[in-house]
Amino acid sequence: MNIEEILSEVQEGRLTAADASDILKKEGYMEMQYAKLDAGRKERTGFAEVVYCSGKADEHLISIYKRIYQSEGEVFGTRASMHQFELLKDTIPGITFDPVSRILKAGGEQKDLKGKIAVCTAGTSDIPVAEEAAQTAEFFGTYVERVYDVGVSGLHRLMSRAEQISDANCIVAVAGMEGALPSVIGGLVSCPVIAVPTSIGYGANFGGLSALLTMINSCANGIAVVNIDNGYGAGYLATQINRLAAGS
Amino acid sequence: MNIEEILSEVQEGRLTAADASDILKKEGYMEMQYAKLDAGRKERTGFAEVVYCSGKADEHLISIYKRIYQSEGEVFGTRASMHQFELLKDTIPGITFDPVSRILKAGGEQKDLKGKIAVCTAGTSDIPVAEEAAQTAEFFGTYVERVYDVGVSGLHRLMSRAEQISDANCIVAVAGMEGALPSVIGGLVSCPVIAVPTSIGYGANFGGLSALLTMINSCANGIAVVNIDNGYGAGYLATQINRLAAGS
Amino acid sequence: MNIEEILSEVQEGRLTAADASDILKKEGYMEMQYAKLDAGRKERTGFAEVVYCSGKADEHLISIYKRIYQSEGEVFGTRASMHQFELLKDTIPGITFDPVSRILKAGGEQKDLKGKIAVCTAGTSDIPVAEEAAQTAEFFGTYVERVYDVGVSGLHRLMSRAEQISDANCIVAVAGMEGALPSVIGGLVSCPVIAVPTSIGYGANFGGLSALLTMINSCANGIAVVNIDNGYGAGYLATQINRLAAGS
Amino acid sequence: MNIEEILSEVQEGRLTAADASDILKKEGYMEMQYAKLDAGRKERTGFAEVVYCSGKADEHLISIYKRIYQSEGEVFGTRASMHQFELLKDTIPGITFDPVSRILKAGGEQKDLKGKIAVCTAGTSDIPVAEEAAQTAEFFGTYVERVYDVGVSGLHRLMSRAEQISDANCIVAVAGMEGALPSVIGGLVSCPVIAVPTSIGYGANFGGLSALLTMINSCANGIAVVNIDNGYGAGYLATQINRLAAGS
Amino acid sequence: MNIEEILSEVQEGRLTAADASDILKKEGYMEMQYAKLDAGRKERTGFAEVVYCSGKADEHLISIYKRIYQSEGEVFGTRASMHQFELLKDTIPGITFDPVSRILKAGGEQKDLKGKIAVCTAGTSDIPVAEEAAQTAEFFGTYVERVYDVGVSGLHRLMSRAEQISDANCIVAVAGMEGALPSVIGGLVSCPVIAVPTSIGYGANFGGLSALLTMINSCANGIAVVNIDNGYGAGYLATQINRLAAGS
Amino acid sequence: MNIEEILSEVQEGRLTAADASDILKKEGYMEMQYAKLDAGRKERTGFAEVVYCSGKADEHLISIYKRIYQSEGEVFGTRASMHQFELLKDTIPGITFDPVSRILKAGGEQKDLKGKIAVCTAGTSDIPVAEEAAQTAEFFGTYVERVYDVGVSGLHRLMSRAEQISDANCIVAVAGMEGALPSVIGGLVSCPVIAVPTSIGYGANFGGLSALLTMINSCANGIAVVNIDNGYGAGYLATQINRLAAGS
Amino acid sequence: MNIEEILSEVQEGRLTAADASDILKKEGYMEMQYAKLDAGRKERTGFAEVVYCSGKADEHLISIYKRIYQSEGEVFGTRASMHQFELLKDTIPGITFDPVSRILKAGGEQKDLKGKIAVCTAGTSDIPVAEEAAQTAEFFGTYVERVYDVGVSGLHRLMSRAEQISDANCIVAVAGMEGALPSVIGGLVSCPVIAVPTSIGYGANFGGLSALLTMINSCANGIAVVNIDNGYGAGYLATQINRLAAGS
Amino acid sequence: MNIEEILSEVQEGRLTAADASDILKKEGYMEMQYAKLDAGRKERTGFAEVVYCSGKADEHLISIYKRIYQSEGEVFGTRASMHQFELLKDTIPGITFDPVSRILKAGGEQKDLKGKIAVCTAGTSDIPVAEEAAQTAEFFGTYVERVYDVGVSGLHRLMSRAEQISDANCIVAVAGMEGALPSVIGGLVSCPVIAVPTSIGYGANFGGLSALLTMINSCANGIAVVNIDNGYGAGYLATQINRLAAGS
Repeated sequence: MNIEEILSEVQEGRLTAADASDILKKEGYMEMQYAKLDAGRKERTGFAEVVYCSGKADEHLISIYKRIYQSEGEVFGTRASMHQFELLKDTIPGITFDPVSRILKAGGEQKDLKGKIAVCTAGTSDIPVAEEAAQTAEFFGTYVERVYDVGVSGLHRLMSRAEQISDANCIVAVAGMEGALPSVIGGLVSCPVIAVPTSIGYGANFGGLSALLTMINSCANGIAVVNIDNGYGAGYLATQINRLAAGS
Repeated sequence: MNIEEILSEVQEGRLTAADASDILKKEGYMEMQYAKLDAGRKERTGFAEVVYCSGKADEHLISIYKRIYQSEGEVFGTRASMHQFELLKDTIPGITFDPVSRILKAGGEQKDLKGKIAVCTAGTSDIPVAEEAAQTAEFFGTYVERVYDVGVSGLHRLMSRAEQISDANCIVAVAGMEGALPSVIGGLVSCPVIAVPTSIGYGANFGGLSALLTMINSCANGIAVVNIDNGYGAGYLATQINRLAAGS
Repeated sequence: MNIEEILSEVQEGRLTAADASDILKKEGYMEMQYAKLDAGRKERTGFAEVVYCSGKADEHLISIYKRIYQSEGEVFGTRASMHQFELLKDTIPGITFDPVSRILKAGGEQKDLKGKIAVCTAGTSDIPVAEEAAQTAEFFGTYVERVYDVGVSGLHRLMSRAEQISDANCIVAVAGMEGALPSVIGGLVSCPVIAVPTSIGYGANFGGLSALLTMINSCANGIAVVNIDNGYGAGYLATQINRLAAGS
Repeated sequence: MNIEEILSEVQEGRLTAADASDILKKEGYMEMQYAKLDAGRKERTGFAEVVYCSGKADEHLISIYKRIYQSEGEVFGTRASMHQFELLKDTIPGITFDPVSRILKAGGEQKDLKGKIAVCTAGTSDIPVAEEAAQTAEFFGTYVERVYDVGVSGLHRLMSRAEQISDANCIVAVAGMEGALPSVIGGLVSCPVIAVPTSIGYGANFGGLSALLTMINSCANGIAVVNIDNGYGAGYLATQINRLAAGS
Repeated sequence: MNIEEILSEVQEGRLTAADASDILKKEGYMEMQYAKLDAGRKERTGFAEVVYCSGKADEHLISIYKRIYQSEGEVFGTRASMHQFELLKDTIPGITFDPVSRILKAGGEQKDLKGKIAVCTAGTSDIPVAEEAAQTAEFFGTYVERVYDVGVSGLHRLMSRAEQISDANCIVAVAGMEGALPSVIGGLVSCPVIAVPTSIGYGANFGGLSALLTMINSCANGIAVVNIDNGYGAGYLATQINRLAAGS
Repeated sequence: MNIEEILSEVQEGRLTAADASDILKKEGYMEMQYAKLDAGRKERTGFAEVVYCSGKADEHLISIYKRIYQSEGEVFGTRASMHQFELLKDTIPGITFDPVSRILKAGGEQKDLKGKIAVCTAGTSDIPVAEEAAQTAEFFGTYVERVYDVGVSGLHRLMSRAEQISDANCIVAVAGMEGALPSVIGGLVSCPVIAVPTSIGYGANFGGLSALLTMINSCANGIAVVNIDNGYGAGYLATQINRLAAGS
Repeated sequence: MNIEEILSEVQEGRLTAADASDILKKEGYMEMQYAKLDAGRKERTGFAEVVYCSGKADEHLISIYKRIYQSEGEVFGTRASMHQFELLKDTIPGITFDPVSRILKAGGEQKDLKGKIAVCTAGTSDIPVAEEAAQTAEFFGTYVERVYDVGVSGLHRLMSRAEQISDANCIVAVAGMEGALPSVIGGLVSCPVIAVPTSIGYGANFGGLSALLTMINSCANGIAVVNIDNGYGAGYLATQINRLAAGS
Repeated sequence: MNIEEILSEVQEGRLTAADASDILKKEGYMEMQYAKLDAGRKERTGFAEVVYCSGKADEHLISIYKRIYQSEGEVFGTRASMHQFELLKDTIPGITFDPVSRILKAGGEQKDLKGKIAVCTAGTSDIPVAEEAAQTAEFFGTYVERVYDVGVSGLHRLMSRAEQISDANCIVAVAGMEGALPSVIGGLVSCPVIAVPTSIGYGANFGGLSALLTMINSCANGIAVVNIDNGYGAGYLATQINRLAAGS
């Protein structure tokens, strides 16, 4: 029952004021505007629930996957392990695990991918994070162009792919080490660039901090940054932007 | 001349191969795809050039403002000072300075503001950064809803304004101190949230680092972060997203 | 109108369901449980509003002080400056400024101070922060015992004052430099200790970070930490604890 | 013997001045005011000794558990391992190990839990730290309300539990990642909030530093912070406050 | 085809303007000035491609080594593991692995080493990084003088080797812990000094940060710094300088 | 009265047990072993009280200087300003101010300087900190050899002074920037070396942090470090060591 | 006298063994190999002494400038102020001060500039540091090509200048904010690149730390880094490399 | 041969000037003042060479131990492992390994321990570092008083041991977590205190950084700090001070 329904019930005498008050209090703020957030997540926001697998206890993971798969017909998780795939492969039909992106998923009709984003990486070591971003975006219905290994120390590689990224609605730029790729891309395109620092590197990269600082301090326009190695977050945000552009 | 034109000139004998080669080399990569970047910036990207006033020498600032004003009919600068306003007020007709946002601008027809973004702040001290974002977005033709002083330590303030932000194409969330506002907003809306940490605070805020880390680590979906106090960058990026949504 | 009243209005036909829904949505979450937070702050929480003066524009400060003074009969602000005192001294009758604690206050009947807290400092340079804590607590009706300059490099000073702090409901321990005072006090008393790092020191104290880390890592039980130089926060929290102990 | 007894012995000739002096010196400062700290800990402070199991050598742990169990009839340890449980399970009758909170305990009559605190977490990954806090508080006789998984990116979850926490004497708010939960709770309640940052997260959370800085910089009133993952410290401090409130 | 050739083809009618445009666009910026960067790397820069082995998947490493060995007759990789050596030893004839420098290489005629650089270390624990630098430089044809274990806490060791380094074209100075060696060497020689901080040490060395800061802040002239443990980068840069000096 | 005296009074009936208990409690721990710490400081430790002038209020400074001068016949303060000298020059006869070391002192008979320490600096900019150390040591009766501007980037300067430092009981080594001097000295001498990092430098020296880390990580034996710019602390500690060596 | 000369004097009886020993000891290590370092600096290393003006006392600066000018006929200082220029302009004939580079110099015949280096900047704000580098290199006889404002967010600017830098013996790449310029240049050229981070920027640039980390972590080959804003150091090192290449 | 001897040889014609020059150059600075540093280490400084075992290759460790044992009759190593003990136990007669201090030693007559130092720890977890300090000092002939588990959160424990430390020539104070112990001890004694931060703790202790900063910022006089967990360095320095005091 939403507010209007509750009030109608009161008006029509089927509910006392006291009972209506109790319902409103108990359900709290949920019923007012952002109600049933989890249950209705997909309908409301267009984004189904995604499972962050890392660190989940075995029995919890199994029950979560089963519940989502049963209610949604598909389930998608990030930061999974081979062990977690073994756990679930007999329970969830057709479940697959990609050891690069660490995505563990099952079901889902063949999706009609819309719009276009590009996911670029500076090096080949950044590909796992990029794949997390790309596959997340695809799960949410976005068409993804992959442009990998185009780091700034060999600009010709990026230049030769420039046309492929020029009509994207959003670029996800993934880079570790010095993390300069988003600045260069930001100077080439006019769409938003989501910068993803990775923990790739050694020495004074401090687990990705150097790349994060580079990106946050970018002098190019139209760049914003997500957490180190957060491919999922970038894929999600790129999808939001792509949907706005695609009018969906 | 673009590549096709140059090649036609060669084919038709009006240009020797050597001269054509010189032109291509001299103009370099510019003529290939992203040519005449600065001169054609506004036409190409829809974003006129913006002046970062802070630290500019007096004579440089004057000449830059005059040049842009003459060619564009309008000029817009950020991080300006009262002194810089004094310098320019007799030179650029109708120039105005807003001491809160530190924006120094002149000219520009009344713009038709399109789409909608919301700029929110946690406290009143964050307003200067928010105004830099909001006025930048307005300069670029974006309709801006201002929702100030809705920090998370008094949630009712944000809740009472929730409807005003629910239909924005993008939210700019500005906060210093603990910087938690973007996370809360990110849980309430389904559009992208651009988080702007500010240097407001004292003690262990380390010039905005605490708010930056909070925002980068946000557990909400659809959030990306710009540099500390970078209202301009947020306003620019929000405009890019708003234009994609508005189909302009 | 609270929920019950709105619902009664509906039940009795004086309000349509649609109008009631509008009211509930507009007032949002406020009317449900934590409504009218600011207006009713003092009645609800027992804590009147306190003004953070630093950085406030002159006209804003004047209007805030006048509004609070008129509605509450007293007004209390922290981090004020001599300039702000000059601004207000002709407007707010009997306003006083303490250059040590930087507290700017006016009005208020002589309060009946209840319970007991102790505010301790390691050195004399920590006294400004300690006074902010102590005077804040006194403004909120707490009896405060001041025990200053009892740093750990001369333990006898603390020992000779031990009895004075042994029956407090809460200790506020203020220290800069190495910040060891709260650990030592935590081992001597059985009540909660609120540790306040100060920015006093030089070199590797990094603006109070060294004292903050010391306090956060304390091996004594019953210690929690507030921000560097945050005397106000400590005085507020100590008052909450003292009221719980005093049953008020 | 306390000071009065020693002096009486001297006065009555049963003790020479020299012997009395020796006793006083040997027992040092202990006998003066805070004597027999360890032996009399429980009687004096109401807090029995708690064992920090992590890193203890096997034989030390066994002898400590045996000694405390024999003298107190109960023993309670934190940060224990399954290996340590195996070590002790044949030695201490009825000893139990909770792999979530890592608490290893035995004995203790059924306690009469008094007052009320609430332990809240932002996510499910924060539960181990929360359980350390909750079980510590229960061991010390505090009634604990658990309110888990109410992070700020989905405010409705917290709102729907608001009534449950509104009458607590103290809230322990446990959060990793961006650590915003304590600020939001601090704005909702009028009792003290003990903020516990956790090391949950990745990338730029730097082992909990981001959450720690968020909490230290909170703009809400009535918040203080303990070390990263220090559930025990929060449970102890919450118990101190709860006892003051409950008059015990 | 380079630009001139393409244009000649057009001029002579063997290529249409449209096809020429396609070629130029597809090859992008490569053909203009810095073309065929990877394929022609060795010819153009004199530096063959080097493989960074760490983290490479087994199949990738095998194919990369085979491809380079077949086309170049030699292959050189850094940060390899014994496991990677096992993988390749049956595939690449004569491949060798040095467990100290972790260099995995095969082929290459006996090179004529030119010029002279010196590679110095502060301690014996810095030798692995130094060997990576030295062997890299040797692979690129540089004569290397090794001067190990000449740290500043025993200056006589460095002094007794002074003559050996005095005629080098470039010094690579490798040091962990306090990292003072480059400053001392910088005061003794007049050639460039490349400082390599290592992660050797414990406690407050923070993985090499202390040595990095020492070197960056050196008060000696003619010193520049590469990343922590980056022996390869130092060997490469030293070779560039040595070649300039040797006129090759 | 010490413990024995109090007990005798009790034994002889001149003091009741209750009164004796009161005295002992009131004087606390002071009378037991480390009593009258401040009053008897000079007699007990051989170190007169030193005034830390920085940040002291004018009236406080005047009264402190007068009190110490009257009771001791001499007074010595560090981190003083020219303004503070002006304040005191008419009040304290013969007071002098050294703008380099910022020491403000008066009185004191010509002292008989004993033993020997050496105070060395890397550069001339480190001299103010070195002079604070040297003059502090001289005030406490230590003979000081000054060896300035002997930084490691020009080793011959240090070598030519080696004999002068070889028979010191303790070396104070003062250095900013890369802070390598103590390591080199530590390798040359067999006496303790007290390392004093200074805030001299720019860029990545982070206010002396780089020098501090260098010194803490020194691979030389016999080195310990004091706070950045803490010349006073080094002079004090060097005096303690010198006295032990000189048997005074 | 060098060692051979001293020994000859002894052999020929013109010097006693004792006197020779005294001379050797007094001159210490200087006479052995790196003797008369300062006096003979220019002859030995080809680099005249340069004055670091910042923080020098007025009288010291005057005497240093006079001494060097008299003995060398020219004098060159960095980080000078307008005040210092005023001090010296009547004393040193023809002295000039450049407020951009802050270089204060006098005398010197017109130098014959040799070889070629390029000094590049990302933005116009980096020019002061670049000019310090360029003018230092010119003072030491190096031909300098200036390529300013070619930051990576507008690559066409750098590309159009590529030919100008392609034949340099060394590139000095100066950049603040995200500091990505050296990586891009490193991918374009085959000569050494000296990266100079600047403190230009705001927010999370932390006084140049972000640019420093970017440069240290560069994935391009042939790059080394000097301290933040250290234009002098880069100009010095570039000159060393240029001389090696030019065979001078 | 020292300088005088060489010169005499020359004077007497038994050595040519050229040969003498060669000898002087080859032996370099060693023969002048600090010659034969390693071979003569024990005779010259009174400190035999100590082996840092951690990270040493097996064969290196064996050969080092054998060489030292044969020439000195005793051998002493720190940071050893059980594996290293196994390696050596059949080779070096009577070698012993202490798993707490990780010291691996053999031989040495029963030493006559002189003077007195005290080694104190805050907790029991700090004992491994303390034992490294204590056993190092004992190896060098120092009498050591152990005072363990006297942390500042239970001051009575330290007070009851005060007499034991009051006559030491030097105190080594070892503490992790908040690291406050040295400050408290520094206020109690008049001898030098060497503070040793340990990496004991969790959360915001950052591997011992918190304790290090606490100790560096200590407001007590007479304290200096060594690296985190550097028990060896503290034992060495304490021995130097003890020897100065004991006149040996």
